[in-house]
Amino acid sequence: MVKALLSALLVLVAMSSTFGKYIPKTGKRIPQTLSRGWGDQLIWAQTYEEGLYWSRSRNKPLMVLFHLEDCPHSQALRKLFSEDNEIQRTLDEDFIVLNLVYETTDKHLSPDGQYVPRIIFVDPTMTVRADIVGRYSNRMYAYEPSDLKLLLGNMKKAMKLLKSEL
Amino acid sequence: MVKALLSALLVLVAMSSTFGKYIPKTGKRIPQTLSRGWGDQLIWAQTYEEGLYWSRSRNKPLMVLFHLEDCPHSQALRKLFSEDNEIQRTLDEDFIVLNLVYETTDKHLSPDGQYVPRIIFVDPTMTVRADIVGRYSNRMYAYEPSDLKLLLGNMKKAMKLLKSEL
Repeated sequence: MVKALLSALLVLVAMSSTFGKYIPKTGKRIPQTLSRGWGDQLIWAQTYEEGLYWSRSRNKPLMVLFHLEDCPHSQALRKLFSEDNEIQRTLDEDFIVLNLVYETTDKHLSPDGQYVPRIIFVDPTMTVRADIVGRYSNRMYAYEPSDLKLLLGNMKKAMKLLKSEL
Repeated sequence: MVKALLSALLVLVAMSSTFGKYIPKTGKRIPQTLSRGWGDQLIWAQTYEEGLYWSRSRNKPLMVLFHLEDCPHSQALRKLFSEDNEIQRTLDEDFIVLNLVYETTDKHLSPDGQYVPRIIFVDPTMTVRADIVGRYSNRMYAYEPSDLKLLLGNMKKAMKLLKSEL
């Protein structure tokens, strides 16, 4: 009898701890990460305003990466990008990073249009480095998976900060 | 001899697969989530622009939640908020959700100042519902952990959409 009561109690406790957890009708979801697969070990800014703030206050360039989850070009770049030790370390140590799947209202971030994947560097003086471009004249800020060396070179360029005129 | 070569090969393969993973000098980090602990099962917008876009296109109100990771009031509210099944289900089914630790440039989101935790509802017509307020006259959009019932009532108010004047 005591045993039966104890079992009932255990079931109740188990149920109440389950009750606290909301699970969608469509089934449990994997929590979204801010990295979205572009580098789980990096500390990502959530918004452009936040990225600019950290860039200015830490005097590090900001890298803004526009992509789409279901774009095969973005996916291909993401795979190599996230696995490239040197890119990841350099970004972690010397950059503020932001990845966005939704465009901002700031036109400076789309100097030659809105497309993905697209990588724009911003100096801590809040100047968009429109001069740091990739290999393709029709989409100047696009990078293919084979362009990682070029990207790394461009990161080094972004690290040579513009002089603040203030 | 063959065995030794095979072992060496295995070690090399193991090393190269480790090499691909960047680990910060300060040690491995837990990837940041977009939920930041406010509901891992919800689909969070990353930015205000994204939230407005989904709100308009799905005709659902947007809930914007300002908080700070190391603010004890935010933490206390977050614990109950994330464990409240009804709030979580209602948000998941009837709202677009956004949580921000960094203020936007839009002054409409801080009708009586910038403080945390602060919850602002936005109608799909992109109208900030400044009329949906909490219990405190000096911080009208603040909620304490004991205000969850009031918050739920305010969510129901936000679900009664304003008529679009377009």
